[in-house]
Amino acid sequence: MKYPPAIQKLIDQLSELPTVGPKTAERYALFLLKQSDAWLAGLAQSLQNFKSGFVYCSVCHALSATNPCSICADAKRDLNLLCIVSETKDMLLIEDSRSYNGRYHILGGTLSAINHQGPESLQINSLLSKLKHQPTIKEVILALNPDFEGETTSLYLKKLLADLPIRISRLARGLPTGATLDYADQQTIANALKFRNKY
Amino acid sequence: MKYPPAIQKLIDQLSELPTVGPKTAERYALFLLKQSDAWLAGLAQSLQNFKSGFVYCSVCHALSATNPCSICADAKRDLNLLCIVSETKDMLLIEDSRSYNGRYHILGGTLSAINHQGPESLQINSLLSKLKHQPTIKEVILALNPDFEGETTSLYLKKLLADLPIRISRLARGLPTGATLDYADQQTIANALKFRNKY
Repeated sequence: MKYPPAIQKLIDQLSELPTVGPKTAERYALFLLKQSDAWLAGLAQSLQNFKSGFVYCSVCHALSATNPCSICADAKRDLNLLCIVSETKDMLLIEDSRSYNGRYHILGGTLSAINHQGPESLQINSLLSKLKHQPTIKEVILALNPDFEGETTSLYLKKLLADLPIRISRLARGLPTGATLDYADQQTIANALKFRNKY
Repeated sequence: MKYPPAIQKLIDQLSELPTVGPKTAERYALFLLKQSDAWLAGLAQSLQNFKSGFVYCSVCHALSATNPCSICADAKRDLNLLCIVSETKDMLLIEDSRSYNGRYHILGGTLSAINHQGPESLQINSLLSKLKHQPTIKEVILALNPDFEGETTSLYLKKLLADLPIRISRLARGLPTGATLDYADQQTIANALKFRNKY
């Protein structure tokens, strides 16, 4: 015995969200059942329109409302530093720690055999091109998650950039290994930036 | 520093789902970012259309694709028994336990001072009318959650129905007090039905 098809379909769709099982999806659906048509229409509209409400910055590849993004367009940023992160959200977390004034480069993921993500699926060519054409960059900070895939990607980049006259550093191990940037507090991120070490 | 407004708006909207905080909403949004336009359109369409895809059964008040629902329309159901539940999902759970062949009455909630839900907000008048006009009903089974609000509602109904020539029972205390029907396994629900006791 199941819910009416229209509700069951919504539950099935919501079950596809990450970490959401049938019970949670059911709870969401029963919540949605009690919302006004206007609220539901608003969410439906967001789902269909949010993709046209942003661009990827052509310089750093961050999710942004403008191109270039506000950081790449900011002349007061330290052009000596380039911080490499996996996703835009990692950049936002570092910005929130208020302890970094350089620019960013968003890879768009990490190397992952399981997810079939090789170097060609990441923004690595544009990184090499950037390092070649912007001699102001003196240091590259690898700010990837201290987990297996982040470590693999860091190692790969370390070897790739070894011959360039650029200091390569990575976030200090104030971060607990195996965790993700998501759940680190701002002070931990600030410490990790402050004590970054030669790689 | 925040995401582009279109994404931030979606995150804020998703944060309103029950038990979803900003971090989880962000995770959902980043997942949605990677879904196809067709998938997103499908979900958006469900959100706007699912309410027109079901009705409330005019007999038992369950969420249903048809009116009357398949249970109320089923002549093979035992008309001597009426099982009173809070929500449609509780009916579905009892159906899944395959140990009940009577009909249901969905109250649409429980008495709750905190949520300002009094008797008038529940399907109690239609319950009284049903008991009055359907002399086949010999037993009413109170199948409300064994928590504070469920107990209050059970007591209220016990007093309300005391003068009727109907046996009133409730689910056996195989259910751990303070828990909800949601997380009980089918055997626990089956036992609770089998050992229901006079109230």
